Amino acid sequence: MNPDRLEQQMRFLIEIDKLKHVFRQTLLMDASRYENDAEHSWHLALMAILLSEHAAEQQLDTLRVLKMLLIHDLVEIDAGDTFCYDKAGNRDKAAREQKAADRLFAMLPHEQGPEVRALWDEFEAGRTPEARFAGALDRLHPMLHNYQTRGAAWRKHGVRKKDVLDRNRAIEQGSPALWEYAKRLVEESVRKGFLCE
Amino acid sequence: MNPDRLEQQMRFLIEIDKLKHVFRQTLLMDASRYENDAEHSWHLALMAILLSEHAAEQQLDTLRVLKMLLIHDLVEIDAGDTFCYDKAGNRDKAAREQKAADRLFAMLPHEQGPEVRALWDEFEAGRTPEARFAGALDRLHPMLHNYQTRGAAWRKHGVRKKDVLDRNRAIEQGSPALWEYAKRLVEESVRKGFLCE
Repeated sequence: MNPDRLEQQMRFLIEIDKLKHVFRQTLLMDASRYENDAEHSWHLALMAILLSEHAAEQQLDTLRVLKMLLIHDLVEIDAGDTFCYDKAGNRDKAAREQKAADRLFAMLPHEQGPEVRALWDEFEAGRTPEARFAGALDRLHPMLHNYQTRGAAWRKHGVRKKDVLDRNRAIEQGSPALWEYAKRLVEESVRKGFLCE
Repeated sequence: MNPDRLEQQMRFLIEIDKLKHVFRQTLLMDASRYENDAEHSWHLALMAILLSEHAAEQQLDTLRVLKMLLIHDLVEIDAGDTFCYDKAGNRDKAAREQKAADRLFAMLPHEQGPEVRALWDEFEAGRTPEARFAGALDRLHPMLHNYQTRGAAWRKHGVRKKDVLDRNRAIEQGSPALWEYAKRLVEESVRKGFLCE
């Protein structure tokens, strides 16, 4: 074992503690405070463990799904959280996140940085079954929080039923079953007044 | 797909949002507030992804390590966090956590509950290479936080060098390399006044 290599990995692990300070637009399910990216990533990983049977593809590499979900938001340490319905913020999001990825993953030892970067690129591109399933969970998760908090983030930002369906339609590519569930959640939310038509 | 089964899984995923409210004795690395169990579990999973090369056993099932780390603290939703140096609290910890595991994992569908319970039992027993490595990370992680916060939790609770070494010696079973690193961290902490001899 090369102590410099371990030291470099530890510096990265210390750096990413900052993800616990990146707050999202989503409230915790008891609506007591905003959720941060580290908690969100943990919750997604649990969803992947428990819901992989509902993925579009049955022969999924769950380890790769988990790795992607656990690292997918690290770039927000530099780039910040961009609310998915914020059109202006989403215009330069990709460029901000690429720059963040360049800095962060370069902190890792020589072959490990590119490995983690490749996982992040795969998640972002959404072209493999694993990335599509991970992406579906990343979209479904805030919908669960919104439903549990009576549409708090939707109402705060004037998000409507059509916005939610347009934004989250990609869930179907990763999991038709979860997309059916998501659509029922949207209908229930409209019926209960958590989301406007 | 059976909608009742998915509904049951979702109820569990909603229930475990409570882990974000279970606070530990560890401060975040910038010392701004206490860390919660969801953040801790996410950070451990990242450690497992990046540090598995340092495990005692080279043929490790990383997926099982990740699953164990992501679920290992769920029982604290009912049982609360027990500070590892709190002798009184640790006396009935096992009983409190067994009861919590009984309630929580029974929320999952019939074969999935026992599967997750088996992972938790494996982590607790620490008899497989995967459980020993996961346990090593669970011990090392608060040491990193303590070092970064100039020994905040150690000093608050009057924890001494011998306590830290005794408590964390099991790291060696999971990873001799990380145990070497941990011992250097302890020496540095004593030298810098973060930890008393």
